[in-house]
Amino acid sequence: MAKVAVFMGSKSDESLVRPCVDLLESWGLSCFFTISSAHRTPERTEELIRALEAEGCRVYICAAGMAAHLAGAVAARTIRPVIGIPLASGGLGGLDALLSTVMMPAGFPVATVALDKTGARNAAWLAAQILALEDESLAARLRRAREELRAEVEKNASLLQGNAD
Amino acid sequence: MAKVAVFMGSKSDESLVRPCVDLLESWGLSCFFTISSAHRTPERTEELIRALEAEGCRVYICAAGMAAHLAGAVAARTIRPVIGIPLASGGLGGLDALLSTVMMPAGFPVATVALDKTGARNAAWLAAQILALEDESLAARLRRAREELRAEVEKNASLLQGNAD
Amino acid sequence: MAKVAVFMGSKSDESLVRPCVDLLESWGLSCFFTISSAHRTPERTEELIRALEAEGCRVYICAAGMAAHLAGAVAARTIRPVIGIPLASGGLGGLDALLSTVMMPAGFPVATVALDKTGARNAAWLAAQILALEDESLAARLRRAREELRAEVEKNASLLQGNAD
Amino acid sequence: MAKVAVFMGSKSDESLVRPCVDLLESWGLSCFFTISSAHRTPERTEELIRALEAEGCRVYICAAGMAAHLAGAVAARTIRPVIGIPLASGGLGGLDALLSTVMMPAGFPVATVALDKTGARNAAWLAAQILALEDESLAARLRRAREELRAEVEKNASLLQGNAD
Amino acid sequence: MAKVAVFMGSKSDESLVRPCVDLLESWGLSCFFTISSAHRTPERTEELIRALEAEGCRVYICAAGMAAHLAGAVAARTIRPVIGIPLASGGLGGLDALLSTVMMPAGFPVATVALDKTGARNAAWLAAQILALEDESLAARLRRAREELRAEVEKNASLLQGNAD
Amino acid sequence: MAKVAVFMGSKSDESLVRPCVDLLESWGLSCFFTISSAHRTPERTEELIRALEAEGCRVYICAAGMAAHLAGAVAARTIRPVIGIPLASGGLGGLDALLSTVMMPAGFPVATVALDKTGARNAAWLAAQILALEDESLAARLRRAREELRAEVEKNASLLQGNAD
Amino acid sequence: MAKVAVFMGSKSDESLVRPCVDLLESWGLSCFFTISSAHRTPERTEELIRALEAEGCRVYICAAGMAAHLAGAVAARTIRPVIGIPLASGGLGGLDALLSTVMMPAGFPVATVALDKTGARNAAWLAAQILALEDESLAARLRRAREELRAEVEKNASLLQGNAD
Amino acid sequence: MAKVAVFMGSKSDESLVRPCVDLLESWGLSCFFTISSAHRTPERTEELIRALEAEGCRVYICAAGMAAHLAGAVAARTIRPVIGIPLASGGLGGLDALLSTVMMPAGFPVATVALDKTGARNAAWLAAQILALEDESLAARLRRAREELRAEVEKNASLLQGNAD
Repeated sequence: MAKVAVFMGSKSDESLVRPCVDLLESWGLSCFFTISSAHRTPERTEELIRALEAEGCRVYICAAGMAAHLAGAVAARTIRPVIGIPLASGGLGGLDALLSTVMMPAGFPVATVALDKTGARNAAWLAAQILALEDESLAARLRRAREELRAEVEKNASLLQGNAD
Repeated sequence: MAKVAVFMGSKSDESLVRPCVDLLESWGLSCFFTISSAHRTPERTEELIRALEAEGCRVYICAAGMAAHLAGAVAARTIRPVIGIPLASGGLGGLDALLSTVMMPAGFPVATVALDKTGARNAAWLAAQILALEDESLAARLRRAREELRAEVEKNASLLQGNAD
Repeated sequence: MAKVAVFMGSKSDESLVRPCVDLLESWGLSCFFTISSAHRTPERTEELIRALEAEGCRVYICAAGMAAHLAGAVAARTIRPVIGIPLASGGLGGLDALLSTVMMPAGFPVATVALDKTGARNAAWLAAQILALEDESLAARLRRAREELRAEVEKNASLLQGNAD
Repeated sequence: MAKVAVFMGSKSDESLVRPCVDLLESWGLSCFFTISSAHRTPERTEELIRALEAEGCRVYICAAGMAAHLAGAVAARTIRPVIGIPLASGGLGGLDALLSTVMMPAGFPVATVALDKTGARNAAWLAAQILALEDESLAARLRRAREELRAEVEKNASLLQGNAD
Repeated sequence: MAKVAVFMGSKSDESLVRPCVDLLESWGLSCFFTISSAHRTPERTEELIRALEAEGCRVYICAAGMAAHLAGAVAARTIRPVIGIPLASGGLGGLDALLSTVMMPAGFPVATVALDKTGARNAAWLAAQILALEDESLAARLRRAREELRAEVEKNASLLQGNAD
Repeated sequence: MAKVAVFMGSKSDESLVRPCVDLLESWGLSCFFTISSAHRTPERTEELIRALEAEGCRVYICAAGMAAHLAGAVAARTIRPVIGIPLASGGLGGLDALLSTVMMPAGFPVATVALDKTGARNAAWLAAQILALEDESLAARLRRAREELRAEVEKNASLLQGNAD
Repeated sequence: MAKVAVFMGSKSDESLVRPCVDLLESWGLSCFFTISSAHRTPERTEELIRALEAEGCRVYICAAGMAAHLAGAVAARTIRPVIGIPLASGGLGGLDALLSTVMMPAGFPVATVALDKTGARNAAWLAAQILALEDESLAARLRRAREELRAEVEKNASLLQGNAD
Repeated sequence: MAKVAVFMGSKSDESLVRPCVDLLESWGLSCFFTISSAHRTPERTEELIRALEAEGCRVYICAAGMAAHLAGAVAARTIRPVIGIPLASGGLGGLDALLSTVMMPAGFPVATVALDKTGARNAAWLAAQILALEDESLAARLRRAREELRAEVEKNASLLQGNAD
């Protein structure tokens, strides 16, 4: 049973969303990763949510571009936390997807993260942070991952200052 | 049986959307005017569409603000033309609603018109223009309405140039 | 006699607009596809509209970039539905064309769709949806096209979930 | 015979455009001030241009808001200089009118000035600067007007520094 | 012991943030509501986080405007979920606060919600949705609150359609 | 003696500005084409203007990017018409240069044209349109150039419609 | 002899800029506060800079709106630090002034602060921070001012938490 | 002892920030160049500031992208001048970093310069201009560097005008 479901609106989004799934799996969080579209497959989206709710899915992650309605469509049908990854496509630089994702009406929040791959990684982080509230070993893994991010900065800083000498 | 259905996402949008309904009715087009929300009442929205489709509703008009998903949610469930009126609210001046309405994926167009009251009027115009394709007396009424818009410019121009003398 | 006229403002727009024409033709809708510019050939634009109106053209589709006035210029001269495809060019990402197309004054709606190729496809969809109001076999073709879009999502989802195993 | 024609798209724009006309008249430049709309009265706009061209009108000034096509419609029909005043209306702060006015295709420039009243004044200035190329007494009046602007800054600076003591 | 901490950057933000606190309290969630600034009181912010972490605070909500760094500063110091409410102030309509809040680097998500009061309400919703993962009675309260939102739409729709008759 | 002076802010702008100079020269308008910067060489800019004014230069064209002050700096020192070409550079797509060029205070208009190469061409057009007010043979050349633009559209339309058969 | 010169482009900016002057004076920093415009009074601006340079003025602060060139014009003529306060006016919310102020070419930085009154205060802060590098008593005053900002947050937090009980 | 500290948020920013360091060193200003992140290494950032303050560091330069909080985090902990270089990344063209850097609250200015490499160079210029207030030989070097910028424009202008003959 997956605790996290990751939806993307289109197969073409896969390279941007993959880092989210990889990160979740690196922390031992199995996730249900699928394609479903708010517009092309509204029934499929609803049925998946119903099935996932029944199975006890705890967090939803939805990635979509342009008039990105997928996260909102999921948020309308669950009280579980829904995380939205806005994807940039075309000349508007993702502003369309960002505003379509974040500006939700009262009662239906979408926890919006940054655009594209950085956002995909942060969606995984946020989902894991939520699940870590009830999973101390996951919390420990997140603290270690933070340590690694910190250590990488320090290593790079040492290399830079070494180079600078 | 209404040929046009006008949905708005919230009661607070009524003053902006009312000019759309008034204009449709002034042309003898009865319309079904209701409130339904893509997020708060997704089932209601679906049921209304199902009922309206069964009754032969021909054109849908949807007005919503912020992450305006209502028109898209309707477009996902009908092949009838769907017109979207983006409503401005808050500091982003309606850019959020405009992009959420217009940037739809292939296969699910929302015929987007201008923001707020001007858009509401144009949604009525566009719906009537579509229906006038099969209704010559409606077409005649639209031509007359265009004449009145033209005459008003000319009258105001005369007044202005008279004043200017 | 073409029921749909597709105008683009410049030869250089052809690759973006071609998907619109291809889609219309795939549904058996012959269309009159031409180049005319609101600014370079205003008389040609007017004459084409006059001729198309006389022949009974039912829907106009206009694609243009930058200060995209073509759809508006057509809308000023017909009460038939006019669909606008804003084209991105240069650094503003199409925001110029989008706002120039959608923000029309009351009485002269341009049914605006998304930017560039997605918009071109949706202009064909919207035109066909309008014509399908009086053409049940076209409506059936659109329903099948929707089915194919749906099926493609499901196939891709199967492949993805298969890959994920 | 007016050397300058000032068009505005709607009677409601008058208070924003009036400073343009007042400034032109203060410099002894009679102007033809009228209302005509690119969309509501396209024939009127064309006929006015034809008449003004015949009378030897030298500069056109066009003020419009939203999808501001008026200046472009005039520019398509004359080789005389056309000045565009974008007017802000609604929440987009005039960005729609600015981009619709300035982003013209090659061969059809619109000399765009700032938004609203400041733009209206600068349209008068620009028209007068153009006409002053062949009218030395007008040039002298513009130099004096510049002197007055300069003197006003100096007077206000004196007052401020006096106040500050 | 508060499970939710609500920080705002300045006393002047209180009227915008109050709906968040009221909503949390209406669901029986006591929250620690305080003022602390990423820039004016960085040590205070750090000490509060340290104390709240020690007490077992589970979710942080941070509201700030302009270059809104408060949520990011908290996110840098905890692995608990951090929710950001961007507040609009000045002419940029909140775009500054929105981008400063949402565009966080990988590893430090801020779950961003809509601007201002709607965002404040949704921050409360999102926090409650997270806590409801381990609190079935809270989940029931959220489902009832959703029911009320749904019922309100239906009541307003009835009134509207009654009025329309 | 050059009737038109073309300034660009930096050597790196040459490829964008060259079409302006080429077009002017194709119409037999010799122009003084140089590099001068509002910030790097303010005295040079002033001296050039003084010399050009003395020589009877009639129109100034200024191309600059980013915080594009060059056109404004020239406009502050002449009552001749000043045309501004905003150049895009970096991620803001030219919005910085456009707003820095067009939003001039009352009394100091910059006749702003479109971004980059299209703007460069239109600056040449606008300068020639201004000079053609007192030069009928130049006016005739501009009318012919318009004819060629028109003919090109018609030729391309024929080819397209031929291709479409 | 004033160590800080504060220029604003227009008398109408005074209420926005006054907090800058008041803050400087509250720290015992006399400042030369005047009106001068990059466009209306370019010679005055140059002469003032020359005089201020001769007197040993150390920091310049320039406030302007729209196509805000004043700070850039000063930066072109001194190697002293120049601080720019962009002022919002009209519908673009100050984006025009911000981009015109900050996007300076290499070699001519304008140290840009926030829009309007907050920016005015921060211009005073930044000027004082620069001067405090060589003035320990001023540094001490700035540290105390920071303390007061900190204390105010803490007092307001106490009141809020007291109220919340 | 370094008088200038240059922080960047990530190793990947190095190519954009390097011109800043190179320019400082070309003027004989040794600088402490390191990587530290507001979010990944908040303690490291604080410790570095504490050490640099103790050593008498006089100016801080901070470069960061997206929700660029680094300059603000430094500004919160020192009264020395802090210069911010916003870095563009992703589709928003740096607008996110620019607004996150410049819109600081009163009392905590970040002296913001242009985006990316131009900004990096201007950060070096601004830091040197500040230090030159107490270092006449540095001031002389800056004046010479300005001379070189001026001479380069003149040389390029000569070449261009030579080419143009």
